Amino acid sequence: MKVLLVFAHPEPQSLSASLRDVATRELEAAGHEVRVSDLYAMGWKSQIDRADFPALGSDERLLPIAASKNAFSAATLTDDVKAEVDKLLWGDALILQFPLWWFAMPAILKGWVDRVYAYGFAYGVGEHSDKRWGDRYGEGTLAGKRAMLIVTAGGWEEHYGPRGVNGPIDDLLFPINHGILFYPGYDVLPPFVTYSTDRFNEECFETAARHLRERMRTLETVEPIPYRRQNGGDYHIPTMELRAGLEAASTSGFRLHVRQFAEAGSGLS
Amino acid sequence: MKVLLVFAHPEPQSLSASLRDVATRELEAAGHEVRVSDLYAMGWKSQIDRADFPALGSDERLLPIAASKNAFSAATLTDDVKAEVDKLLWGDALILQFPLWWFAMPAILKGWVDRVYAYGFAYGVGEHSDKRWGDRYGEGTLAGKRAMLIVTAGGWEEHYGPRGVNGPIDDLLFPINHGILFYPGYDVLPPFVTYSTDRFNEECFETAARHLRERMRTLETVEPIPYRRQNGGDYHIPTMELRAGLEAASTSGFRLHVRQFAEAGSGLS
Repeated sequence: MKVLLVFAHPEPQSLSASLRDVATRELEAAGHEVRVSDLYAMGWKSQIDRADFPALGSDERLLPIAASKNAFSAATLTDDVKAEVDKLLWGDALILQFPLWWFAMPAILKGWVDRVYAYGFAYGVGEHSDKRWGDRYGEGTLAGKRAMLIVTAGGWEEHYGPRGVNGPIDDLLFPINHGILFYPGYDVLPPFVTYSTDRFNEECFETAARHLRERMRTLETVEPIPYRRQNGGDYHIPTMELRAGLEAASTSGFRLHVRQFAEAGSGLS
Repeated sequence: MKVLLVFAHPEPQSLSASLRDVATRELEAAGHEVRVSDLYAMGWKSQIDRADFPALGSDERLLPIAASKNAFSAATLTDDVKAEVDKLLWGDALILQFPLWWFAMPAILKGWVDRVYAYGFAYGVGEHSDKRWGDRYGEGTLAGKRAMLIVTAGGWEEHYGPRGVNGPIDDLLFPINHGILFYPGYDVLPPFVTYSTDRFNEECFETAARHLRERMRTLETVEPIPYRRQNGGDYHIPTMELRAGLEAASTSGFRLHVRQFAEAGSGLS
């Protein structure tokens, strides 16, 4: 496979960077081709602003959606964004690796999403009618490719558990896994998360590295999270509300959008 | 009250900017003192990097938590960050206003959080022992102040409803409301969210503006979201897992961390 790893940590000698190298070495040893977008090393511009749309007239209002649509269709996006779009099209798999800062991505990686995910490429794709509401959530430009997160979290694992005070890690990552990766079509693999990283010693590192290598070896084969496809019949169109009766009785919140074991064809083995 | 509004939209003539002006005018008409941090207009630097820590030696590794701790305690944070810290201490209320991009804040605002929320200021505050796990989630430097979000979302309201495909808006905003605002001590007010903003007409705007003015008039009085206080007895320490039996039987996910109607002293009227 061809694998793009987008990396967001400012320190080349960080734990994150060491884990990145563990992942890339394992992938390359298995015969995969790996490219890394090291956002800090690239001097990536974090925020969307007027400079992203050089074709926009100086007296025109910057409406981000319209500007993105026009720039993508006219191929007037900036070269740094075009290069990332090309890398996403090139890769069979995408890995986003980042430290969890304030329960979300670092700004520089959020800015990679905001800028690279152009209208017509990552959203605003496909027919919008009473039959389907665009190609998104399981369909879209990046359908057929795989994606996963590699996340380092400073807090304890228990704090991110089902009853942990931070909220469950799967819910915290839902806006990324479902809203950023599944949205343009990726099959989203379970994330790799390491905890208590501000107290890591050599032994912790070796354990994390071993688990990470295992995950890299199954990148092609592990079952994706069984998110429901938007246009697969589970949702009313165009309100995009889940039809009644599909979920287990006790389920609520984000888990509504993951197919349950009891449902036919769940794909969760 | 003294109100700080942190604003994140690149276009001065945007819908977001118009709503910001509606909010600030209403607050000022009610006698509140308002300051605005307009991040794009300020040329705010989005990403944490080595330039944030001028006291860090050029041969030292950048460990963000340690660097933040040292810089905050030695008062060597950069001037732009110090100014925002001072504004947060000045304000009785904080409003974060932003368009919802990819189910999260724009990068520039995430970078405001990443950079301004220093160790010793917004986290790493208070005693960590078997009795309490720091002053956070309802306690901390910013306790006693109020905070709320003003959010514009392009999608339909139904898409963000209890069964909407994007996930419920309250869950999507939980990492911000609970993880960024409640964490350093704010009382978090219900968010103001406007939907379908990419199809706004004059009538939509007037309706949104009227609701927003109402919300600004109740900024001092509306009940906060009844998040559970970390050190208030509901959680085991130090695993910070919610004790058994506190939640309604059908509740799961993020809602565990909001006190239920049935609980004594819920504060939810």
